[in-house]
Amino acid sequence: MGYIKLSKKSFFHNLDYFSSLCGGKNKLSIALKDNAYGHGTYEIALFCQEYGIKHVFVRNLREYQIIKNFNFDSILVLYDIPKKVNENIIIAVNSIEYLKNIPNNSKVEIKLDTGMNRNGIYENEILKAVELIREKQLVLNGVFTHFCCADEDNDITLNQEKKFQILVKYFKKDFSNFRIHCAASAGVHKVDMSKYDLARIGIGAYGYLDLDQERYLKPVMSLYGQKIATKRLNKGDHIGYGSDAFVALKDIVVSNYNIGYGDGFFRFSEHKKANIADGRKILGRVSMDSLSVEGDDDEICIFNNVSQIAQANNTIKYEVLASLNPNIEKIK
Amino acid sequence: MGYIKLSKKSFFHNLDYFSSLCGGKNKLSIALKDNAYGHGTYEIALFCQEYGIKHVFVRNLREYQIIKNFNFDSILVLYDIPKKVNENIIIAVNSIEYLKNIPNNSKVEIKLDTGMNRNGIYENEILKAVELIREKQLVLNGVFTHFCCADEDNDITLNQEKKFQILVKYFKKDFSNFRIHCAASAGVHKVDMSKYDLARIGIGAYGYLDLDQERYLKPVMSLYGQKIATKRLNKGDHIGYGSDAFVALKDIVVSNYNIGYGDGFFRFSEHKKANIADGRKILGRVSMDSLSVEGDDDEICIFNNVSQIAQANNTIKYEVLASLNPNIEKIK
Repeated sequence: MGYIKLSKKSFFHNLDYFSSLCGGKNKLSIALKDNAYGHGTYEIALFCQEYGIKHVFVRNLREYQIIKNFNFDSILVLYDIPKKVNENIIIAVNSIEYLKNIPNNSKVEIKLDTGMNRNGIYENEILKAVELIREKQLVLNGVFTHFCCADEDNDITLNQEKKFQILVKYFKKDFSNFRIHCAASAGVHKVDMSKYDLARIGIGAYGYLDLDQERYLKPVMSLYGQKIATKRLNKGDHIGYGSDAFVALKDIVVSNYNIGYGDGFFRFSEHKKANIADGRKILGRVSMDSLSVEGDDDEICIFNNVSQIAQANNTIKYEVLASLNPNIEKIK
Repeated sequence: MGYIKLSKKSFFHNLDYFSSLCGGKNKLSIALKDNAYGHGTYEIALFCQEYGIKHVFVRNLREYQIIKNFNFDSILVLYDIPKKVNENIIIAVNSIEYLKNIPNNSKVEIKLDTGMNRNGIYENEILKAVELIREKQLVLNGVFTHFCCADEDNDITLNQEKKFQILVKYFKKDFSNFRIHCAASAGVHKVDMSKYDLARIGIGAYGYLDLDQERYLKPVMSLYGQKIATKRLNKGDHIGYGSDAFVALKDIVVSNYNIGYGDGFFRFSEHKKANIADGRKILGRVSMDSLSVEGDDDEICIFNNVSQIAQANNTIKYEVLASLNPNIEKIK
C-alpha cells in the first residue's frame, strides 16, 4: 500500500492564498469530504485546526464522526441525514424530500440549484421549502449554491451568481442571520467575495486548480511505493502479467513496489502509459498490489504532483486524489 | 456512497465450481486481499467460514488483523512482515531481503519467481534461501509460484509449471511437510490439481474469469446508488459539471445518485461513456459524490456484473472491483 506524505507547509501556503483572496481565514470552509480528497479526513482536520480554520464540510455522517471532536465552529454534512437532531451538524438540503426527512429542530443549509440541475432546491420549490423549515422548526444556518462551470471561460458562473442573488432574497424575507456562500476554489476567482460569508475550498487547498492561478499553489500529497523485490532481467524477459505488456530490450535491473490498482492508483498498462515522479516509466501492467520501474531504490515517489498521472489516464486531477484507497498510511 | 449487495448464494456457487475442479474445498485458498477484491475482507471471511474454507490469503497485516479471530487453518500474508514472530501468520517470502527481515522462528512460504520477473526467489537464490531458513530456524510452511499468463492461449503457463516443479525439488531435499501451490483462478484450468495441495482462488470466487469457463460462474457483487434528488429538465438544460458534457435534447426527468469517483467508481464523462445495469446511460460527468441517470427511481443498480463497466473504461474486471472504496457499506 505504500504511503502518502502530506506537506503541512504546502497546505498552509494554499490556505494563505485563499485566505488572502477571500478576506481572511474565517471565510474559508475546507473540504474534508471524500477522505479530504484522498489526503485523510482526520489528518487534514488536524492541519485545519492548527491553521485556525473554523468551518469544514464532509460528505456523510461517517466522516462527521471522524472529526466531531475537533474544534470547528461549523461542520456541514453534504449528503446525509442524522436520525436524531444533533446541534453540531449542519445538514445540507438537496431536495424537498430531504427537508421532509430531516429531524425537527435540526440546523440546515439550503442548497439552491442555479444551473447544475443535479441537487438542490429550484426557484419554484422555495415557498415549499420555507413552509417546511417553519413547520419543522428547523434552524436556517445558511443558503448556498454550487457553480457548474467556474473553470470555463464563459458567463455561466456570472449568470448562476445572479440567479443565486435573486433566490437568496426569498429567504431574507423570512429569515435572518444565515450565512450565504456560492464559490468554491475556482469560483472565488470570479465572484466578489466581500458579498459572501464563506468560500468552500476543496481542490485549491490541496494544490490544484483548473485555472492559471494554479501556479500560486503547491500540491500537498506525494505518493510513495516501497520496494518488494529487485530483479536482474535479461534482454527478452517480460515483467508481470501478460507476455507482451513489457519485454526488456536489453539487460536491466527492475524493482517492484507496493502500489497497485488495489490502492486506487490507475491500472496503467501497455495501452495507457505513465511515469513516476522522476520521469521513469511504469513498466508493463500495474497489478492489484504492485508496479515495476527500472532501478533498485528502496522506495520511489510515484507522484508529488498528479497532473501527469491525470493526463495519462485522460481524467481530472481530482480523480487521481479522491480515488486513492483511504487505508493508505499518511505521514507528515 | 451507495451500498454493495453481496450474494452469498453466488459466492457459494463459485466455490462449488472451484472445489469440484480442484479436488475439494480443503484445497482452496481464497483471496481476502485488497478488501476481498472490493467485496469486504470481513464479510467474505464470514462467507468463507460458513462454507468451510480452511485457507485464505491477505495482502498485509492490516487485513490479517480483520480476520485473525476467524476459524481458518492458515492465513498467508503476501506482502508484509510482522515485527515479532506470530505462529498464526504465514509470511510470503518475496525476496532474499524479505527472508533477512523476517523474525526468527516464523512460518514462511517461499514464493518462487518462474517468469513473472517481479517478486519471488530465483533459482540462483535458492541455496541462499535454504541457508537463511535454517539459520533463522524458520518453519517452511510452503513453496509456491504465480503464473503470469494463465489466461493466454500459449505454453507459458506450462513452462512456468515445469520450472516450478524443478525448483520445488531443491526444497524437497532439505525439507518435508510443506505445501505446494501454483495455480490461481485461471491456472486451475491448465494444471493437474492432483499434484498440488492448494489453489489460490481470487477473481473466480467473485464470479469472473478471463476464460470461456466464466459462464459457469456468478458475480457476487452488485453496486447500488441511492437517490439524492430528482430534477425535471427542459430541452437545452445541462447536467452537472461542464456546460456541454450533457445537454438535454428534450424535456426529461433525471435523478442524481450517491455514487461517484470518490467511491472508486470510474469517472465516466462525455469522453468515456457507460451504462448502469438496466442499460440506462450515465449522463454527463460522474462527480466525486454522484452520478445522474434518466428517471426517478429511489435507488438504482449501477452494476451487477462489471464486464460492461470494465470495457467502457478499457480495463480489466479486477480493477472495477478492487478500486472500490472500502468504506462503501456491504449488505447481504
